Amino acid sequence: MRGFQKLTFTYEALQIWLDALQIEVRVTAVPLNEAYNRVCAEDLVSKNDLPRFNRSAVDGFAVKSEDTTGTTQSKPLLFRLTEKEELADAGPREAKQIWTGNPIPKGADAVVMLENTKRTNNKIEIWSQTIPYENVSRKGEDLKKGEIAVKSGTRLRPQHIGLIAALGYSEISVAQKPRIAILATGNELAEVGIQLEENQIHESNCVMLSALCHELDAEPLDLGIAKDEIADIQEKIQIGLKIADAVITTGGTSVGGLDLVPEVVNTIGKPGVVVHGLAIRPGMPTALAVLDGKPVIILSGNPVAAIVGFEVFGRAIICKMLGMKKEETRPTVEASMTRKVAAALGRKTFVRVKIIEKNGEFLAEPISTRGSGALSTMTRGNGFVIVPENREGIAEREKVTVHLFANIEA
Amino acid sequence: MRGFQKLTFTYEALQIWLDALQIEVRVTAVPLNEAYNRVCAEDLVSKNDLPRFNRSAVDGFAVKSEDTTGTTQSKPLLFRLTEKEELADAGPREAKQIWTGNPIPKGADAVVMLENTKRTNNKIEIWSQTIPYENVSRKGEDLKKGEIAVKSGTRLRPQHIGLIAALGYSEISVAQKPRIAILATGNELAEVGIQLEENQIHESNCVMLSALCHELDAEPLDLGIAKDEIADIQEKIQIGLKIADAVITTGGTSVGGLDLVPEVVNTIGKPGVVVHGLAIRPGMPTALAVLDGKPVIILSGNPVAAIVGFEVFGRAIICKMLGMKKEETRPTVEASMTRKVAAALGRKTFVRVKIIEKNGEFLAEPISTRGSGALSTMTRGNGFVIVPENREGIAEREKVTVHLFANIEA
Repeated sequence: MRGFQKLTFTYEALQIWLDALQIEVRVTAVPLNEAYNRVCAEDLVSKNDLPRFNRSAVDGFAVKSEDTTGTTQSKPLLFRLTEKEELADAGPREAKQIWTGNPIPKGADAVVMLENTKRTNNKIEIWSQTIPYENVSRKGEDLKKGEIAVKSGTRLRPQHIGLIAALGYSEISVAQKPRIAILATGNELAEVGIQLEENQIHESNCVMLSALCHELDAEPLDLGIAKDEIADIQEKIQIGLKIADAVITTGGTSVGGLDLVPEVVNTIGKPGVVVHGLAIRPGMPTALAVLDGKPVIILSGNPVAAIVGFEVFGRAIICKMLGMKKEETRPTVEASMTRKVAAALGRKTFVRVKIIEKNGEFLAEPISTRGSGALSTMTRGNGFVIVPENREGIAEREKVTVHLFANIEA
Repeated sequence: MRGFQKLTFTYEALQIWLDALQIEVRVTAVPLNEAYNRVCAEDLVSKNDLPRFNRSAVDGFAVKSEDTTGTTQSKPLLFRLTEKEELADAGPREAKQIWTGNPIPKGADAVVMLENTKRTNNKIEIWSQTIPYENVSRKGEDLKKGEIAVKSGTRLRPQHIGLIAALGYSEISVAQKPRIAILATGNELAEVGIQLEENQIHESNCVMLSALCHELDAEPLDLGIAKDEIADIQEKIQIGLKIADAVITTGGTSVGGLDLVPEVVNTIGKPGVVVHGLAIRPGMPTALAVLDGKPVIILSGNPVAAIVGFEVFGRAIICKMLGMKKEETRPTVEASMTRKVAAALGRKTFVRVKIIEKNGEFLAEPISTRGSGALSTMTRGNGFVIVPENREGIAEREKVTVHLFANIEA
């Protein structure tokens, strides 16, 4: 009946855990129209120059640029209109009408915009001098043949999808969505939608952790609620290990009597729990384990601590399973603290703040923690300030980096 | 055969267009485990205090706080352990063992952490003085009964989902996903996956605009490719108006000969095109229309211009259809330009930059535009700097706001 002998720093904990794991990126092929937000699992190479040919960037007239030398608005030059595939090599000046995206005809090397021309019968007046390749999208200017267009490990945003389509790929390799089984434990928990008995509360961590998985495009699997009983917890974790690539539990992580998930995990297999007790606030009783070579994250039942634990360990492991070269982080903003906040020396402390824009500057207003486990501190706020282990707090007006978990509202 | 007589500023264009539209938020009910990233369509009220009862925030012993007066580590006080539902009103000091989340027994008003106690037979030594409500999550501290937990118009992030679950809602009202029909036009376009003939290019805007819709949680519907023919474009736009809440087209927007989408739109119904020719770069030939009271966005075929047009007009209209109180914007960072960039006076110019972190400062490196339509300028970069209409460019080292369309990589 005592606290943890020693708390492990988060970076150490992550290293110990990763060293005990074998993470493998599983790959699948998807049609391009289902690839948005997936993570690319191959280097996509441009099979041709893009564009494949010199194209007009505007509507206008293709010309030999040298033919336009000396033309001005007051002294326009007259060009003969041609319908042929190519401009004549010699003879009178020729121009061919051309629309945006059309190939540049042979013999031409520039396009004069419609606005700088005037048609008169079969002739065209041009009053704008051009230089070679003016208004031309040159062959290969976007990508050269053989160039890597999108690297393996890239989260595919709309612009990547567009570029991949332009290259002609209709199907690409992406990382499979890591399957994350999620279990809540606790005798006091009732499913959402069920009428509560006295002393019961609604289970809310599973659906919240599922949403956190969706945010990273992982696939959550709901293991439901286990009673605070060894057999029930054992059975459900074992199901999770069968159906998923990782298991996350919440509740039952402290060193007290009913807090038995880490103990149960150790009965299931080796190495079991590799870290228990973290230098993090909230989330001190978090534990990290490995069973069947798969990651198991044992989170606190406190919902804010569960989010913090997921952010630090769930995010890291999911990004690895997705084959990302580097952990995907939340957007950040720099802000100035509106008042001082205490933090725990020796712990990495996650302070919830609300970003307010004032006179073009961002201010970070700490959310008054009526209760540290109160989830409304996160719905009222929109970001975390992470206070490092060697600081006892943040001063008023101090510049901080805020990790955004929701949009900034004006 | 000339350019636009007058270009309309984007804010004017948006106002003219919105004035000609009737946007209606359609609502649907979804189970909570499908609500992530949807937009809440009702004010969700706390039906009870949250927590519903005073709960222990730690594992330890519930006590009357006044009983701990004067205790110290060197002179601990002895408490009698009780199993009863409530501590005795009078008599010797009593303590009841309690786990995180358990209700505080009657008569007790604080909890002493396990770490500050030592059990000896039937007694418990306590050496930490407590104050009322220490280590207690108080009834209603998260939310009071009747308080609004989540406002209508809120994009539901994981923390909202968790809070709504804790309140016991198993199903909630959200905005229906706006259905956006997307049409590409152009004789030069071939479907992705098809072998190209000479002078053909792969259509890439539909799948890219679909991804942009997914990003906002709208539902894209693919109308395919229309030839540059009145009848084909007419028919496909009419299908779009039947099956969707809005139509987006790309290609055929300039004032040239084959650029006929705005003209075709005007043959379909009233008011048709309400703005054509925008003070924006890229994207000058963008047009905005209204048919059957529904928004129609006529984007350039240039993929970067299509993205910019979607960002300015598609995003605005989708956020309205989702019932958001305010347009949802991309995250921004402040950065310093690494070199000067020219912009067009009188146009809102979208400059693509790559954000680099250097010595703790963000630098914005303009992407050299080998071609303005080159989509690789967006896959190489990660943000836009928006140069306002009254500026001719940005100076080297100038501080700018960058709108991020991809993550910053270290």
